[in-house]
Amino acid sequence: MNKIVIKIGGSLLFTKNLEVDTSKVKEFCNIVQNEEIYDTSVIVCGGGIIARNYIKAFRKFRDNESLCDIIGIEVSRINARILQGVFGDHAYPVIPKNMEELAKALITQKLIIMGGLQPGQSTTSVALEAAEYSRANHVVILTDVDGIYDKDPKIHRDAKLVKKITPKKLQTIILNEFEANQALAGEYRIFDLVSLQILKRSNIKVTLMSGKNLQEFKRYINGSKDIFGTEISS
Amino acid sequence: MNKIVIKIGGSLLFTKNLEVDTSKVKEFCNIVQNEEIYDTSVIVCGGGIIARNYIKAFRKFRDNESLCDIIGIEVSRINARILQGVFGDHAYPVIPKNMEELAKALITQKLIIMGGLQPGQSTTSVALEAAEYSRANHVVILTDVDGIYDKDPKIHRDAKLVKKITPKKLQTIILNEFEANQALAGEYRIFDLVSLQILKRSNIKVTLMSGKNLQEFKRYINGSKDIFGTEISS
Amino acid sequence: MNKIVIKIGGSLLFTKNLEVDTSKVKEFCNIVQNEEIYDTSVIVCGGGIIARNYIKAFRKFRDNESLCDIIGIEVSRINARILQGVFGDHAYPVIPKNMEELAKALITQKLIIMGGLQPGQSTTSVALEAAEYSRANHVVILTDVDGIYDKDPKIHRDAKLVKKITPKKLQTIILNEFEANQALAGEYRIFDLVSLQILKRSNIKVTLMSGKNLQEFKRYINGSKDIFGTEISS
Amino acid sequence: MNKIVIKIGGSLLFTKNLEVDTSKVKEFCNIVQNEEIYDTSVIVCGGGIIARNYIKAFRKFRDNESLCDIIGIEVSRINARILQGVFGDHAYPVIPKNMEELAKALITQKLIIMGGLQPGQSTTSVALEAAEYSRANHVVILTDVDGIYDKDPKIHRDAKLVKKITPKKLQTIILNEFEANQALAGEYRIFDLVSLQILKRSNIKVTLMSGKNLQEFKRYINGSKDIFGTEISS
Amino acid sequence: MNKIVIKIGGSLLFTKNLEVDTSKVKEFCNIVQNEEIYDTSVIVCGGGIIARNYIKAFRKFRDNESLCDIIGIEVSRINARILQGVFGDHAYPVIPKNMEELAKALITQKLIIMGGLQPGQSTTSVALEAAEYSRANHVVILTDVDGIYDKDPKIHRDAKLVKKITPKKLQTIILNEFEANQALAGEYRIFDLVSLQILKRSNIKVTLMSGKNLQEFKRYINGSKDIFGTEISS
Amino acid sequence: MNKIVIKIGGSLLFTKNLEVDTSKVKEFCNIVQNEEIYDTSVIVCGGGIIARNYIKAFRKFRDNESLCDIIGIEVSRINARILQGVFGDHAYPVIPKNMEELAKALITQKLIIMGGLQPGQSTTSVALEAAEYSRANHVVILTDVDGIYDKDPKIHRDAKLVKKITPKKLQTIILNEFEANQALAGEYRIFDLVSLQILKRSNIKVTLMSGKNLQEFKRYINGSKDIFGTEISS
Repeated sequence: MNKIVIKIGGSLLFTKNLEVDTSKVKEFCNIVQNEEIYDTSVIVCGGGIIARNYIKAFRKFRDNESLCDIIGIEVSRINARILQGVFGDHAYPVIPKNMEELAKALITQKLIIMGGLQPGQSTTSVALEAAEYSRANHVVILTDVDGIYDKDPKIHRDAKLVKKITPKKLQTIILNEFEANQALAGEYRIFDLVSLQILKRSNIKVTLMSGKNLQEFKRYINGSKDIFGTEISS
Repeated sequence: MNKIVIKIGGSLLFTKNLEVDTSKVKEFCNIVQNEEIYDTSVIVCGGGIIARNYIKAFRKFRDNESLCDIIGIEVSRINARILQGVFGDHAYPVIPKNMEELAKALITQKLIIMGGLQPGQSTTSVALEAAEYSRANHVVILTDVDGIYDKDPKIHRDAKLVKKITPKKLQTIILNEFEANQALAGEYRIFDLVSLQILKRSNIKVTLMSGKNLQEFKRYINGSKDIFGTEISS
Repeated sequence: MNKIVIKIGGSLLFTKNLEVDTSKVKEFCNIVQNEEIYDTSVIVCGGGIIARNYIKAFRKFRDNESLCDIIGIEVSRINARILQGVFGDHAYPVIPKNMEELAKALITQKLIIMGGLQPGQSTTSVALEAAEYSRANHVVILTDVDGIYDKDPKIHRDAKLVKKITPKKLQTIILNEFEANQALAGEYRIFDLVSLQILKRSNIKVTLMSGKNLQEFKRYINGSKDIFGTEISS
Repeated sequence: MNKIVIKIGGSLLFTKNLEVDTSKVKEFCNIVQNEEIYDTSVIVCGGGIIARNYIKAFRKFRDNESLCDIIGIEVSRINARILQGVFGDHAYPVIPKNMEELAKALITQKLIIMGGLQPGQSTTSVALEAAEYSRANHVVILTDVDGIYDKDPKIHRDAKLVKKITPKKLQTIILNEFEANQALAGEYRIFDLVSLQILKRSNIKVTLMSGKNLQEFKRYINGSKDIFGTEISS
Repeated sequence: MNKIVIKIGGSLLFTKNLEVDTSKVKEFCNIVQNEEIYDTSVIVCGGGIIARNYIKAFRKFRDNESLCDIIGIEVSRINARILQGVFGDHAYPVIPKNMEELAKALITQKLIIMGGLQPGQSTTSVALEAAEYSRANHVVILTDVDGIYDKDPKIHRDAKLVKKITPKKLQTIILNEFEANQALAGEYRIFDLVSLQILKRSNIKVTLMSGKNLQEFKRYINGSKDIFGTEISS
Repeated sequence: MNKIVIKIGGSLLFTKNLEVDTSKVKEFCNIVQNEEIYDTSVIVCGGGIIARNYIKAFRKFRDNESLCDIIGIEVSRINARILQGVFGDHAYPVIPKNMEELAKALITQKLIIMGGLQPGQSTTSVALEAAEYSRANHVVILTDVDGIYDKDPKIHRDAKLVKKITPKKLQTIILNEFEANQALAGEYRIFDLVSLQILKRSNIKVTLMSGKNLQEFKRYINGSKDIFGTEISS
């Protein structure tokens, strides 16, 4: 079976009143556990709204982005623990905190669930690195947007979803964005620069799709030829 | 100056919409930093509503109270990081994760901020142990209730706040409660059994008071003779 | 096969002149290795007389029960190493020092031997937690008493051994004892309050029996219907 | 005194036949120890030629940039140990391996010497983060080039050294370079993208100068108004 | 004041019935705390009879000297904890487990108490290494023999205590002994080969004396010119 | 298949200009991976010329052999990483840093590659200890000399290679050498005293042979009856 790494955005794990969306979490885990043509080696959880709230508060008191990142990482690991609870003995029982721990965990052939790893690195790039380590050549990123647009859809009414894009073209978009802004902890856009670097040097295919409707994810992961979201591959 | 350990309940750190209550956090830290007759050696943060929400979700998936406790501890440590941000260089820059780390941190004479320590132990008992280690003979517990009542104030309209109680009498109340209930992670009452054990064997005085009105706490910590909350001492 | 966790009291591992009772240790390990209807996942060693001697001395110098507990835990881990020596490659080669390490060790399917885990927790409650983690629903506690009596057999000549007891009834006995006494490190009675909490929330059956005559233990573990010691189950 | 963080490129530490250039190392350490208007809090060592040789070999066997980075980090830490040897008791005796360890080391007021921290991060960005943590607002980067040129001096004969540049302008240069190339471990240019991010969000002034003639560095660090290398500040 | 490292043999810490000899331990600690011309930086505890008993038992089950050493080290660290209890806040609160931890502990200027460090190394050589690290040039070894004899005093009635010996001469004695025997864990003679190596390369003076009569040790450490035991120096 | 532990001297891993000799490294790994009558459980890498260069420099600045050893160990671990890169998933992905980590790694049945372990211990003795732990009764040491000579071949033209020697006889040679010299970090002769101790107490057979011509090693490891180097066995 094809090995796959899944990144699930933290935003998908919570209800509006900031409780864990247990039915959604369960739905997601069921889909992964019953996948037929893929074999998930690693799931990477994002930090989501809880992380962003903590970081927003911390930043009022102290100007240290590296510490902000650490707070985000810790929240993402708690999110990962919730998913571990659902998978039970199927999952590796510990959250890997660095690549060495991930490497050791991979030997056991268990499903590995993790959060962020280190300051300065988004959970997207963690998913890409985990794919490199587990020799998975496909990463699915479940997020709260539908995919990558040719223009900012919040501004431009006629923005169109891009079905397929090369890493090279994606880079141009991202670098433009980077030149305009400044990356702050917990606010990394879907694709940060470090992720882009890994993507460029590896042959990993990335599918970026909305996780709001998990039935689409289910169809995708079970081999549907329908196109969901944006596929990044060279 | 008299050394003191303060435990601040996690419930006091958040607004109703589950964001960190930054103005309250700042008010609390200001009071501590300007205290005149006491010298705070350790602040212990509770997990609060964020912890309880996570644990409630986790429990739906898996029946393992020790893991629930770990989730609560991790949230309390993130809460502690927020306070570290406020105190800046005044605070020890790392969250002690066990008593050895606390002992090493105490040598530096910095203000130490921490969360929970280990499964099966409430943050109240962490505060008591920290007092033992730092040779503080007074612990102030800021919580969301006014103190200890002679009856359950939610049921009995004529319940009265107890101004002063011996550990021995407190034990009788707690044991009765324990016999009726079952301690679940994140739901330890203000005084669990382990705290009670430490209290009985040590000479530590405990003041349990509401943290809702921090001006009362300010007056108390600056030596006011007014009585706030409940004092437990033999 | 039914999974089982065994706790062996430290007192059973030493001769009167405080040397390891190697023939007894060997007898115990042989029984475990040849068990037919049970499959032992974890053995938890107590600290015994060596631990108690160290703690007694330490307490003369310093009044810190948490440090006393740590000394007891360290001795229990050395005891565990002796048993590791007997089981050889059959045993997991490292002593788990917390629940995460235990969880990782359990994946290997080796026999895990451990001592205490953390201050404030008896090795009995470690055995119960290890049962929760390894999904064993039976814990055998080998100790130096015959079981639980309806009265203190040291005082009352007519005290009778209780063959079967519910956790609820056991709680009443223990709480009474607790109200009268004070738990000191290394002197936890067979059932401390934390153990009781785990017992109440789980469905684990506990058999408390004397380890002085290991042939009884052998018969029990091989399915004998004779009743040895006290069985605690709801 | 003004706090300063110094990054010394690994290339400056070795002779042509790949031995440690002990007289140069000693010269550098003497300058730091006798600095008059600055107070160095942290020295960050690069990996240099030894690191690059190892990485080049590793890359032939395995395609994993994260592991390449780890090799480079480990070499840079050995380089740091050599400098620790020169500073003796003046230096913190251990190499911090993450920001928490750095934060603890900073409390001791010793001179801290370190290498890289984590995959995906250049030692330049480590120096910038160390400056954030130690509240130093100046970083000096000693490298084997004279500074930043307006064009690539290897290609363009008329390339001119830039005496002063804003982070914003530096960004344009770096992003262009990034768009053309791909960052490989051990080959990060003087300024990688992560460094740039920190630089943009902080007020740290960076001086990039050649470390080949350490007497220039000496004059600079002792307050000379002559301009050496390139100064990056907004 | 002259810095000194003291190694106290584990055999001196226990009574005949294997309990900690609390009055002797207290006497020893009082002497150290009131020393006038020396300043003790590190105390290294041996394992003593408890260690030997455990190792003897372990060896019956498994033929692995490295594991035997680990057991001995763990017992020596428990012994060190007892002494920590006596010295209280005067002592560094944690047992260093490797040289890096020792180096960090030395910064605090507290009295450091430790046991063994690693398999294959006697506590005597730990004391010598600790002296190298703390720049103490004198090590006092308190043991259960009077010093070094010219012949084996158990066999030869006319064996004479050597008052002074050079490391070179000591080496000849030890190598002869080594050629005849085989070093087993927990049975290292007073001077093993690793200790000898450190002694030869350093300028550390070693005084080997009986710890049975601690009043002699007291006089010695307070500057008495009387000769006790054997002095090893070049 | 017979289990074997291989120690490869660091000197064999580098070209004259101090780069990793990738073709040699590859040749070595291929031989190991295709071995027919042996099964390699552990490969131990030495530090080689890179280590010696660093240590030589460090020693100019500071007189601490324990720190020199640590530098040598760290280089040997980087060397081990290079070999890990060649073996890929066949190899255990982490370098064990102590015997506990080695014991855990051995459970996975992967090929384990490691460097040195601790100050005061040569990588030869690490190989012998690894053999004890993995129950291999044969160690092959690949070095840059042909084997053990009856006299120093650098001085005596008529020195003859010893084909077979008992540990007892080897000891006499080594002790004489030891009496004349002093062991410095990174300069341990092929057989240090600690190695000798392990050799004497165990039944491990050691073959010491040149690694310059790896085809000889290939023939040897595939069962050739030709004699290469020196065999040490009782």
